[in-house]
Amino acid sequence: MWHENKFTQEIGIKYPIIQAGMAGGVTTPELVGTVSNAGGLGTLGAGYMSPDDIDQSIQKIKQLTPNPFGVNVFIPEFPEVSDGQIEKSNQLMSPFREELNLKTKQTPKQSKSLFDKQMDVILKHKVPVCSFTFGVPSKETVQKLKRENIIVIGTATTVNEAIINEENGMDMVVVQGSEAGGHRGTFFSPFENAMIGTMALVPQVADHVDIPVIAAGGIMDSRGVLASIVLGAQAVQMGTAFVTSSESGAKEQHKDAIMNTTEEQPVITSAFSGKPARGIQNQFILKMKDYEDNLPGYPVQNSLTKDIRKEAAKQNRPEWMSLWSGQNPRLSQKESANDIMVNIVADVTSQISAISKHGK
Amino acid sequence: MWHENKFTQEIGIKYPIIQAGMAGGVTTPELVGTVSNAGGLGTLGAGYMSPDDIDQSIQKIKQLTPNPFGVNVFIPEFPEVSDGQIEKSNQLMSPFREELNLKTKQTPKQSKSLFDKQMDVILKHKVPVCSFTFGVPSKETVQKLKRENIIVIGTATTVNEAIINEENGMDMVVVQGSEAGGHRGTFFSPFENAMIGTMALVPQVADHVDIPVIAAGGIMDSRGVLASIVLGAQAVQMGTAFVTSSESGAKEQHKDAIMNTTEEQPVITSAFSGKPARGIQNQFILKMKDYEDNLPGYPVQNSLTKDIRKEAAKQNRPEWMSLWSGQNPRLSQKESANDIMVNIVADVTSQISAISKHGK
Repeated sequence: MWHENKFTQEIGIKYPIIQAGMAGGVTTPELVGTVSNAGGLGTLGAGYMSPDDIDQSIQKIKQLTPNPFGVNVFIPEFPEVSDGQIEKSNQLMSPFREELNLKTKQTPKQSKSLFDKQMDVILKHKVPVCSFTFGVPSKETVQKLKRENIIVIGTATTVNEAIINEENGMDMVVVQGSEAGGHRGTFFSPFENAMIGTMALVPQVADHVDIPVIAAGGIMDSRGVLASIVLGAQAVQMGTAFVTSSESGAKEQHKDAIMNTTEEQPVITSAFSGKPARGIQNQFILKMKDYEDNLPGYPVQNSLTKDIRKEAAKQNRPEWMSLWSGQNPRLSQKESANDIMVNIVADVTSQISAISKHGK
Repeated sequence: MWHENKFTQEIGIKYPIIQAGMAGGVTTPELVGTVSNAGGLGTLGAGYMSPDDIDQSIQKIKQLTPNPFGVNVFIPEFPEVSDGQIEKSNQLMSPFREELNLKTKQTPKQSKSLFDKQMDVILKHKVPVCSFTFGVPSKETVQKLKRENIIVIGTATTVNEAIINEENGMDMVVVQGSEAGGHRGTFFSPFENAMIGTMALVPQVADHVDIPVIAAGGIMDSRGVLASIVLGAQAVQMGTAFVTSSESGAKEQHKDAIMNTTEEQPVITSAFSGKPARGIQNQFILKMKDYEDNLPGYPVQNSLTKDIRKEAAKQNRPEWMSLWSGQNPRLSQKESANDIMVNIVADVTSQISAISKHGK
């Protein structure tokens, strides 16, 4: 069967489909559990989560599914940011805060120990899969995880980054094309040079690493899944497709924005977080366009805009929210994550049967 | 068979593979004839060619192959450019000209009647296929072509542009993803918004037009061909894959640059032509980076750099040449265009047979 390969065998699941570990509350335990129950790999997006929240979420997921699932974490970054830069960014944010009646300026704090504490929870629970974004973990971390039989998956956006993942002990690698929504995992190559489309990136990476390649970026339905496999991937990772699902924790304005946009509107902006990410163009992105290159680096700018994004959602002002989306929003659907999985599996099977007839 | 569809039936060829009509001397009659003899659709890139040269090339192609072939032309653009802008651009070019011992400044001339004269030759020869880049031709032109049973193919880089092509009578539409090398055909959507990866663009367009969709951008081998068909395309158009072929008229430095680069190096630049295009990063691109947004518009800047690009090739200085390439150069091969075709067809057939087994 098309879904029986090294990827599904090693993880012990039925279908080679990962629901991406998107941060920011999208990946509820219900979403993760539903995808894993449907035979895919649900993933908790724990990048910004406290160790306690991760612990509780993992407990809930384990109650919801007996199947393997994953937890995604971010390799931490500590950019040098001056007080002046933070002050300048707070000034730029003040018109938005005023409109939202938010009084306080933000003073971002970065916890140096968050990542280690997140890893402790993941190790304690022996989660089946741990995936990483924005870099590769230390050898020590990889060894600890492997000792608990945790499968480790890295993220790459160029051939070089995929090779670095393999060399650093990753069991598999997600290969993210430029179509992807939100932040891509670029960590070694310059951002502009790493803007490579999925169609071009997947076969080039597949030719250069031996670990299973997981295609991501612009994949929304069976056509993208089967095309990825044809290109040399063993599995796919889908983010935007699950943001609009009923189990997703994304704000309704975010879901509606994806449902109603076109492929031209998700643009690259650094304004929300200090790192380039793909989101649906809105007033915040447009107003910050001239300033985005001089903002504090990620994740400092991300902390500085957190109150605005949160309050904008509360007050139903999507023009100031981060509406992350990939470049394939016309294929988005508001349905259960289970239906998304079931439809993809059925459609891949019919597509294969149609192609097989054409092969004769 | 996988290759029997509306596209191949309407054009009357065996395989749904178009060799892109790249301008600038790449598409020799030998290349066009070889691809058409191998069952694909060779295309003469006539965008910058004089009517006489087109006439002679078509005569040669007809001697080389009895099979259908295409001619690609550019919808003309006449940007407003001041003498000051031309003077400024000539100043920026003068360091390159000095190094190359080129004495004269360029004074670009635009012929308002070139396009009509090109069309006259195409009509006279009743070429089987005429394809258009940078826009859609007038209704009158479409009618004239159809009266001669010439199949007309347009180029789109967004869903809207594909719909415009269909509404204006194009029989088929090439859908170019952001991976594509050289100039893409964007003509309606803003350039940045039209930077959509092939994986995302093809299924969205396929859902919105009834005419056959031809996928382009990042496609280099059987994996890309079959993936495109899976995504909803009926055919593919490949450019970079044929630039390095033995029949291609590309300069040897250009072929070598593609053979030796990675997916990270073909970047977007407006410096050579005044219109964004993807080429391998070199000294010219880097030195012009700060000025490229204020250069004369296409095709004026293109005329202004023509002598530099030509002389740089003669003097073997690839650092000042336009080394157009898509984002998949690691898959390029220096072989005959016939071998490229034969290998793709054989590999697609084996890939389908492998998938068919997995379907059971």
